[in-house]
Amino acid sequence: MSKIKMGPQQLLNPRPAILVGTHVDGKPNFLTISWAGITSADPPTMSIAVRNIRYSLRGIQENRQFSVNVPSVNMVKETDYCGVVSGSKSDKVRECGFKVFYGELDKAPLIEQCPINIECEVLQIVPLGDHSLVIGKIVESYITDQCFTGGIPDIRKIHPLCFCTLTMKSMGYYAIGDFIARTNAMDNPSVGLSSVSTK
Amino acid sequence: MSKIKMGPQQLLNPRPAILVGTHVDGKPNFLTISWAGITSADPPTMSIAVRNIRYSLRGIQENRQFSVNVPSVNMVKETDYCGVVSGSKSDKVRECGFKVFYGELDKAPLIEQCPINIECEVLQIVPLGDHSLVIGKIVESYITDQCFTGGIPDIRKIHPLCFCTLTMKSMGYYAIGDFIARTNAMDNPSVGLSSVSTK
Repeated sequence: MSKIKMGPQQLLNPRPAILVGTHVDGKPNFLTISWAGITSADPPTMSIAVRNIRYSLRGIQENRQFSVNVPSVNMVKETDYCGVVSGSKSDKVRECGFKVFYGELDKAPLIEQCPINIECEVLQIVPLGDHSLVIGKIVESYITDQCFTGGIPDIRKIHPLCFCTLTMKSMGYYAIGDFIARTNAMDNPSVGLSSVSTK
Repeated sequence: MSKIKMGPQQLLNPRPAILVGTHVDGKPNFLTISWAGITSADPPTMSIAVRNIRYSLRGIQENRQFSVNVPSVNMVKETDYCGVVSGSKSDKVRECGFKVFYGELDKAPLIEQCPINIECEVLQIVPLGDHSLVIGKIVESYITDQCFTGGIPDIRKIHPLCFCTLTMKSMGYYAIGDFIARTNAMDNPSVGLSSVSTK
């Protein structure tokens, strides 16, 4: 086996494709990003990396609130569109037919059609070159009622998008595929290598 | 459609399952996490959230270096194991049979069997409650030569793991599934909603 040097590239894969909701110029706007992560358990926080030139960043800076909406596979066109077009030039809510609702925060619009919605209050904005890393405290989260099976949220019904990028020539959206294994991380921290349950 | 309130939960899905490489107490160690994200393009940076009690964090603090290794589906047992067991009590490299190599950095061990490897120098560590958000500058990255098709890295050959967690009762590893669509984000920023190419 040998390794090909790729240069200092962001080869982290797969990543979630999410719609970040903000209020800018008094109206709701959504920006697609895949540069997002969970950052702590207590308090529950997560981060999104937003390019400094983005229209949405102004709304985040002004209101100190944002939302994260996880779209399903059937929303791939709207998802890609919201990453390509600027809210300064178009009304993405109208064009995409998003039904917007609000939870605990008044400047963090949520998309009803997205099976997962998360509301965040900004804790900190870390400047990192061409992007700003926005760290938010999670205030509330929601799952669409139809995405439960036997009272438990069902990833098959949520059917989220994986965004994979390796080079400029190999980028795209994928579905979640085969179930590979449960994790022992939460329920049995003393177990050994052979105990992971594979299908 | 109605929404079920889940409380302030980290419902970001799917997430990458990665093996973070460090040197602690003079030897290479690997910790599995899924709380990772890309944080900027120029400079190329990424973040990992590491629980403060983790053995690996000490190595990151001391050496200001770490690696990110993306395992394939066939490494799911080793991947889960490295998230469950502490390097303070076991030699995960030996137990998992990892072949370790080094690139530009001398304290960021890389796993040969993982199809993607990334080397990072620590830029900043942001304390966030029970976790530390480690932001690293990407110094170099590698892809295994057998994971290319026609000169382009092939996500099917890399075959990474998606880690999905909705509740404590629904957590697990999945493969990448069906290809859904290309993105227009990079090559055609002026296009409209109808132009996303679906299969």
